[in-house]
Amino acid sequence: MFLTRSEYDRGVNTFSPEGRLFQVEYAIEAIKLGSTALGITCKEGVVIAVERRVTSPLIEPSSIEKLFEIDSHIGCAMSGILADARTLVDHARSEAQSHRFIFSEPIKAQSVAQSVCDMALNFGEGDGSQKKPMARPYGVALLIAGVDRSGAALFNTDPSGTLFKYKAKAIGSAAEGAQTMLEEEWNENLTLDDAVKLAAKILKQVMEEAITPVNVEIAVVPVSSQKYQSLPIEQVEEILRSLS
Amino acid sequence: MFLTRSEYDRGVNTFSPEGRLFQVEYAIEAIKLGSTALGITCKEGVVIAVERRVTSPLIEPSSIEKLFEIDSHIGCAMSGILADARTLVDHARSEAQSHRFIFSEPIKAQSVAQSVCDMALNFGEGDGSQKKPMARPYGVALLIAGVDRSGAALFNTDPSGTLFKYKAKAIGSAAEGAQTMLEEEWNENLTLDDAVKLAAKILKQVMEEAITPVNVEIAVVPVSSQKYQSLPIEQVEEILRSLS
Amino acid sequence: MFLTRSEYDRGVNTFSPEGRLFQVEYAIEAIKLGSTALGITCKEGVVIAVERRVTSPLIEPSSIEKLFEIDSHIGCAMSGILADARTLVDHARSEAQSHRFIFSEPIKAQSVAQSVCDMALNFGEGDGSQKKPMARPYGVALLIAGVDRSGAALFNTDPSGTLFKYKAKAIGSAAEGAQTMLEEEWNENLTLDDAVKLAAKILKQVMEEAITPVNVEIAVVPVSSQKYQSLPIEQVEEILRSLS
Amino acid sequence: MFLTRSEYDRGVNTFSPEGRLFQVEYAIEAIKLGSTALGITCKEGVVIAVERRVTSPLIEPSSIEKLFEIDSHIGCAMSGILADARTLVDHARSEAQSHRFIFSEPIKAQSVAQSVCDMALNFGEGDGSQKKPMARPYGVALLIAGVDRSGAALFNTDPSGTLFKYKAKAIGSAAEGAQTMLEEEWNENLTLDDAVKLAAKILKQVMEEAITPVNVEIAVVPVSSQKYQSLPIEQVEEILRSLS
Amino acid sequence: MFLTRSEYDRGVNTFSPEGRLFQVEYAIEAIKLGSTALGITCKEGVVIAVERRVTSPLIEPSSIEKLFEIDSHIGCAMSGILADARTLVDHARSEAQSHRFIFSEPIKAQSVAQSVCDMALNFGEGDGSQKKPMARPYGVALLIAGVDRSGAALFNTDPSGTLFKYKAKAIGSAAEGAQTMLEEEWNENLTLDDAVKLAAKILKQVMEEAITPVNVEIAVVPVSSQKYQSLPIEQVEEILRSLS
Amino acid sequence: MFLTRSEYDRGVNTFSPEGRLFQVEYAIEAIKLGSTALGITCKEGVVIAVERRVTSPLIEPSSIEKLFEIDSHIGCAMSGILADARTLVDHARSEAQSHRFIFSEPIKAQSVAQSVCDMALNFGEGDGSQKKPMARPYGVALLIAGVDRSGAALFNTDPSGTLFKYKAKAIGSAAEGAQTMLEEEWNENLTLDDAVKLAAKILKQVMEEAITPVNVEIAVVPVSSQKYQSLPIEQVEEILRSLS
Amino acid sequence: MFLTRSEYDRGVNTFSPEGRLFQVEYAIEAIKLGSTALGITCKEGVVIAVERRVTSPLIEPSSIEKLFEIDSHIGCAMSGILADARTLVDHARSEAQSHRFIFSEPIKAQSVAQSVCDMALNFGEGDGSQKKPMARPYGVALLIAGVDRSGAALFNTDPSGTLFKYKAKAIGSAAEGAQTMLEEEWNENLTLDDAVKLAAKILKQVMEEAITPVNVEIAVVPVSSQKYQSLPIEQVEEILRSLS
Repeated sequence: MFLTRSEYDRGVNTFSPEGRLFQVEYAIEAIKLGSTALGITCKEGVVIAVERRVTSPLIEPSSIEKLFEIDSHIGCAMSGILADARTLVDHARSEAQSHRFIFSEPIKAQSVAQSVCDMALNFGEGDGSQKKPMARPYGVALLIAGVDRSGAALFNTDPSGTLFKYKAKAIGSAAEGAQTMLEEEWNENLTLDDAVKLAAKILKQVMEEAITPVNVEIAVVPVSSQKYQSLPIEQVEEILRSLS
Repeated sequence: MFLTRSEYDRGVNTFSPEGRLFQVEYAIEAIKLGSTALGITCKEGVVIAVERRVTSPLIEPSSIEKLFEIDSHIGCAMSGILADARTLVDHARSEAQSHRFIFSEPIKAQSVAQSVCDMALNFGEGDGSQKKPMARPYGVALLIAGVDRSGAALFNTDPSGTLFKYKAKAIGSAAEGAQTMLEEEWNENLTLDDAVKLAAKILKQVMEEAITPVNVEIAVVPVSSQKYQSLPIEQVEEILRSLS
Repeated sequence: MFLTRSEYDRGVNTFSPEGRLFQVEYAIEAIKLGSTALGITCKEGVVIAVERRVTSPLIEPSSIEKLFEIDSHIGCAMSGILADARTLVDHARSEAQSHRFIFSEPIKAQSVAQSVCDMALNFGEGDGSQKKPMARPYGVALLIAGVDRSGAALFNTDPSGTLFKYKAKAIGSAAEGAQTMLEEEWNENLTLDDAVKLAAKILKQVMEEAITPVNVEIAVVPVSSQKYQSLPIEQVEEILRSLS
Repeated sequence: MFLTRSEYDRGVNTFSPEGRLFQVEYAIEAIKLGSTALGITCKEGVVIAVERRVTSPLIEPSSIEKLFEIDSHIGCAMSGILADARTLVDHARSEAQSHRFIFSEPIKAQSVAQSVCDMALNFGEGDGSQKKPMARPYGVALLIAGVDRSGAALFNTDPSGTLFKYKAKAIGSAAEGAQTMLEEEWNENLTLDDAVKLAAKILKQVMEEAITPVNVEIAVVPVSSQKYQSLPIEQVEEILRSLS
Repeated sequence: MFLTRSEYDRGVNTFSPEGRLFQVEYAIEAIKLGSTALGITCKEGVVIAVERRVTSPLIEPSSIEKLFEIDSHIGCAMSGILADARTLVDHARSEAQSHRFIFSEPIKAQSVAQSVCDMALNFGEGDGSQKKPMARPYGVALLIAGVDRSGAALFNTDPSGTLFKYKAKAIGSAAEGAQTMLEEEWNENLTLDDAVKLAAKILKQVMEEAITPVNVEIAVVPVSSQKYQSLPIEQVEEILRSLS
Repeated sequence: MFLTRSEYDRGVNTFSPEGRLFQVEYAIEAIKLGSTALGITCKEGVVIAVERRVTSPLIEPSSIEKLFEIDSHIGCAMSGILADARTLVDHARSEAQSHRFIFSEPIKAQSVAQSVCDMALNFGEGDGSQKKPMARPYGVALLIAGVDRSGAALFNTDPSGTLFKYKAKAIGSAAEGAQTMLEEEWNENLTLDDAVKLAAKILKQVMEEAITPVNVEIAVVPVSSQKYQSLPIEQVEEILRSLS
Repeated sequence: MFLTRSEYDRGVNTFSPEGRLFQVEYAIEAIKLGSTALGITCKEGVVIAVERRVTSPLIEPSSIEKLFEIDSHIGCAMSGILADARTLVDHARSEAQSHRFIFSEPIKAQSVAQSVCDMALNFGEGDGSQKKPMARPYGVALLIAGVDRSGAALFNTDPSGTLFKYKAKAIGSAAEGAQTMLEEEWNENLTLDDAVKLAAKILKQVMEEAITPVNVEIAVVPVSSQKYQSLPIEQVEEILRSLS
């Protein structure tokens, strides 16, 4: 009596007979084609890490940016369509700046995550700036990591505009394996150093290529400094050495 | 002579030969994929409760918000697409605030429910704010619970914009079983404590996972205080203990 | 040489080779899915009555509103899609109020009915207010009943924007049987009490469930008072008792 | 090499390979589903008459209006979709009034007919008022009858916006038979009374139901008075009596 | 490898693989369904003539207008969709009047023809007046005939917006045969009387019905008077008599 | 795995899997249906020539205009859809005039060609005037020929908005053969007379009909005068005589 | 269960079930139909070079422009649809000029590349100027080469709006082979002369036609001068001589 699912899956806003929105689900699939990213909170802060796919030795690894600073105390990792991530991050940055300007205080990571989700849900609306809206769901997931007075926090947004808070979360092509490892190894007493090493260790296991200081990016937001910092390549090198 | 139903079911606003609007019916199906929620009125107030689906031990249960405070005397439970619920709740909150501002009195729960239904029926219109409208029906049902001078009231809205008032109502994937239990066990003389326990007892029976203080949310609006309050985890724990 | 009818029946404004507009005809079908409603005029006034479908014992019957007061001297009964009826009734109410404001006299029931038909025909146009128009025909029929200096009048509107005046008319799922009974039993000398009883008697026969004071609604507009009044449940109870 | 006609017949503005516009032709078919109407001119004036289809003995025959006064010296009969006719007649009335206001003289029947045709051709344009245009051709034909200094005149408009002047013309489901009778019986020396009787006689023959004073409407515009007048039911009764 | 032509022929603006625009070609076909029209220039002036199709003896032949005066020195004959012709002629008339107003001299027939072609090419644009544009090509061809200081001229426009100047040209259903006769019989030394007779003679041969003074229309623009004049029925009668 | 090409070739802006835009390619095909045109530069100036297709002996050859003066020092030849050419040429003329007005110097042929290409690429945009844009690519190619201080220049534009400068170029149905002859016979030392004769000679060979002074058009822009001039029919006659 | 890919590949913004956007991928294919272009950075500057396809000996090679100066210190090479490249380059030029005007300093090559990517991602948005946006992805890739205080830089943009920085990069139909050669031969110690020769050598190997000074274009931006300069034909000739 019903058609097969494929008859309902091209309308951006068409429900299937079971009540599903396939174009949003397919956008979520776009993330499974993306590189693996993960985030880990601990009492001392939060770490985000991501695999870089270097397709030619002549490419500048630094130009394959997959970690972004949103405000001085908030960063994010992305998996999925790079250009879509840039649009959402630009939006998040301007939300953060206008919050700082209006309220004279840093924005909370949750508010940033919420505003990214609003934009994802309403992909046909734009953000009120002069930019026109997207004609399709954003094919990207973000791990938004920040620190405020209540400590470190990690939020995961997806193309459906759904928002969850995690203690530790992996996204991208190897998300499943990475998440299992996070669930096995995460505990409340991790130090920030432990968390960084755990992130590196998991990436090392799930990446298809051999991990090198060049094909991963790691950043932290320590509770103490409340400052987002991308780890310099030497420090990444050292961490990788400590793993073997 | 007629086509099968599937030929009429993708146009958001296409009648089938029998006079049905399938896209709205499919949006109603979206709710059957959602987690179970229920609401119970009694003379002393109204309780709403919902199952939380915790997909990873590392997710923060508090971030799977399915109960919302709309105004200090009105709350709601949702089942269906989370991001759609947030849009409707945001609309309801702003209706409540502007009513309070214009008339210097709290809005009635029925008015809130009515304005949610107007938005659901006219999903292509938006709410007059600068937000653009949806291009599809909202895939969410709400149980709107509030208290005013005439006592406690519970309203159920669905994607077709239909509004009914209930003494007790269950929605979501286990709605059928839960509603039967409500019909068997509800009576006019329930105390608010009874109602809370009844809610917890029904969720316990219909949830696939074992119920824990973490995977349910319960909130009440007592007639005495006229204040929406989400039950703290300790109190939920105690209630669950009292059930076994 | 022609296609089957189904090839022409999804365009909201497409003529079939025989000159038919199927989407409007299908919207008319929506009414046959609705509950039965009827209206009866007599010299002393006009009565409208409707079946309420109570799907759960915990639903508040009063919230299944299918009779509406449009102005103090005009009411209506609906059958079809409840939310569509509410939109048309809101439009009719505001027409009635603005007529009263501009001309300092009550609007005639025919003018109300005509303005509902204009809106139904031009479903893609809206009513000039800031509300956006529908993208489909309204799936609802109304029985508009009112009283003015020339006596009681009853009008029937349908999704095609067609308007007829009736002495007595039934709509909804049991319209056919009910109309036959009306044709047999109506005469010019009915009192308003007779008309109310006739309405109740017909509903009793055509309803699938046993009739109770809870699952019917009855309202009258007497010529003497020119005031729309919904009959209280006690009075309905009495009428039903008098039938058996 | 060509597709069958059905491939070209749903676009409102698509030419078929032979250069035909099928949607307009189908709208013309809508008239063949309508009740029969006819108009007859003579030296003394012009008569229009139409069959009323009374579907229930409880319907008020006067509410099945199919003859319309456009201005005091012009009337029209319609066949096809009633609500479409009302829209065109409203337009014609306002054209007539604004002509009277600007030029201080009554509008000519031909000008009224021309303005109806302009609206029919350009169904997607509206009439410059705040009303939005139709999204389909108007499914109605009109017989516009009027009197001015040059005598009585009768114009026939159809959904394609074509306009012809006739001495006598029939439209609607029995148009073919009625037109043959007109061609046999019309002559230049008819009196207005003869014309009225001829109209009644032809309707009597082509109607499926037995003709009664209730199920026909007749109106005349005499050259002497230049006033449109609908014949009262007694006069129609007398005419019918004179036929048998 | 290519589809059949029919796959490309419904888009109003779609090229086929061979670079053809079928909807425009089909609009050109609409002209082959039209009545035959022709125009003949000579040193003394220009004549246009057209067949009238009289479908009922009760139709007023004068209302089947197929020759139009555009300005006092320019006229035109049409073949194809009558209502489309009227729109183009109205445009041409207003172009002629505004030229006369701005430049205090009569417009040239070529300028009129050019402005008709601009409107035909850009059928989706309208003419800058408040009228909305067509949503399809105009299904009409015109023969625009006029006289100015340089003598008589005849222009042929078609639905593609193409414009050619002719000494003599036939359009419509019998265009082919009529054009052959024109090519055989036209010479530079025709008098205007010769030209009128030639026009009548050709129509007589190509028309399916027997030619009568009622079913043809003839008009001339003599070089001497530079005034468009439609030949009165008596003169047409005389011409037809002279042919036999 | 891929569909055949025909599945991608109707969307005006749809890429095929190989990255092709078929509607633009089909518009280019429209030119191969057109009459042959060619342009030849030499030190003394530039010549453009085109075949006229005379379909009836009664057509005025002068009305089949295929060479256009853009400004006093720039002309062009066209092949493809005549009405499209006129639109592009009108645009080019107004560009030339506004350049002259703003900069008090003649526009360069390259600037004219560039502005034609901008309009061809952005066919959906219009030229900023009140004219509405095309809904399809322009089905025409131009050879734009002009002279300025740096000498004679010839530019070729096509429906894709591509622009190339040529020493000599042929377009239209016989473009291939004509271009081969140009490549064989062109050299830097041609005089303008040689170029004109070469143009005539090539047209003579590639045209299906016998060449006559009536069915070709030739124009030149000499470096000495910098004035576009269309060759009078006597001069063309003389050139053709010199060829045989 | 899924459709074949071809069912998802025509919507400009439709995700396939695996989360892919085919129209963007097909636009990327358009580049593989383009001529080969490459860019090489070194300490002394950056070189870009491109193959010119000369289709007729009568075409002016200089009019086949595939290298563009964006600002005095930035240039770019393109592969794909020439007219699309011109649009992006125009946008880049105006970005560069407005940066210079606002900040009184030259724009960075990365900022130029970023703004090109924004426009590519949001192809439906335009650049805020009065130009209307594209209705399809831009079918072009650019190699943007520039020099600033931090040295020479090379950026590659593609139709998906993705941006990467390269030490050396080849695009177009022979990209694969050329990139392999670049990876083999590039090292940090190349002089600018070495880089130019390497570019010429690679083009020589991958081009199907024999390389000549006419069918390649080479440009450099030396760190010393910070001035984009296109190499004159004599210098290209010399370089090619040095290769053999």
